[in-house]
Amino acid sequence: MNLKDKIRVIMDFPEKGIRYKDITTLLKDGDVFKYTINKFVKELEDKDFDLIAGPESRGFIIGTPIAYATSKGFIPVRKPGKLPAETIQNKYDLEYGSDSLEIHKDAIKPGQKVIIADDLLATGGTLLSTIKLIEKLGGEVVGIVCLIELTYLQGRDLLKGYDVKTLIQY
Amino acid sequence: MNLKDKIRVIMDFPEKGIRYKDITTLLKDGDVFKYTINKFVKELEDKDFDLIAGPESRGFIIGTPIAYATSKGFIPVRKPGKLPAETIQNKYDLEYGSDSLEIHKDAIKPGQKVIIADDLLATGGTLLSTIKLIEKLGGEVVGIVCLIELTYLQGRDLLKGYDVKTLIQY
Repeated sequence: MNLKDKIRVIMDFPEKGIRYKDITTLLKDGDVFKYTINKFVKELEDKDFDLIAGPESRGFIIGTPIAYATSKGFIPVRKPGKLPAETIQNKYDLEYGSDSLEIHKDAIKPGQKVIIADDLLATGGTLLSTIKLIEKLGGEVVGIVCLIELTYLQGRDLLKGYDVKTLIQY
Repeated sequence: MNLKDKIRVIMDFPEKGIRYKDITTLLKDGDVFKYTINKFVKELEDKDFDLIAGPESRGFIIGTPIAYATSKGFIPVRKPGKLPAETIQNKYDLEYGSDSLEIHKDAIKPGQKVIIADDLLATGGTLLSTIKLIEKLGGEVVGIVCLIELTYLQGRDLLKGYDVKTLIQY
């Protein structure tokens, strides 16, 4: 199955000149969605890890089925003000603009091994911010899995030293 | 397993007087999360349906693993401006304030049977808005599953005529 064929490219969203990769066409096909998650599970089969973390909100869509399929817990990494208990925060740069992410202080115990899951590796800013939050809590980021990679943005440079796997490349 | 024990209650979030039900304590335990999703799958085993729809963003956390486990497609229902292709929109009242939701016009084909999944049944406003969007596209809502129900808010009254299942009641 060629997963790239299941992604819809939308011109000029959210801004003029952006060729937005729309994953909803992949998600709505049950067979394709299952195949996609199973590919992630296969990528992770030799990994020793305790938790899946996913940044809001498309990281939830990719991360929670992987957590379910691998019988691991899921840690939501959220926009400021969404998590109800005590948090730590990290500000980061986006492909367009800047943003902040938060994680619950008690989300991860020191030494726990974490896989980060998201839909998109663009500049790597969101993922690096997620890494920093996990590491500040004493967690170890043992891998990063993304559905789509925009190779021309060279996000892997920002994530040097981490094991990054992506399923679809542009 | 008593799932209610896995929920953390946070006082005065997001506003004074609210006893917020924090599901992150349930999500981060891999066995508990798996058990939870399997309970939803069991609730749905006699249902004939084509798609799972989930409202942003905790509906993604509940809905996508159910979609994966039942081999169905997932339809994200999102806050305005997040979906890149052509959408329809519905405004609705929240427990505190009001909001809008959007769905892609081509998300659902007329006659497709849809299960809505979310974390919380409070006043029912978000769920009713999601129902309206699905029905406007010609979809049939054949069931609603939520992790938590705040029975004292009587959200079921708003959802009369729909098959609503919840796993934890307050």
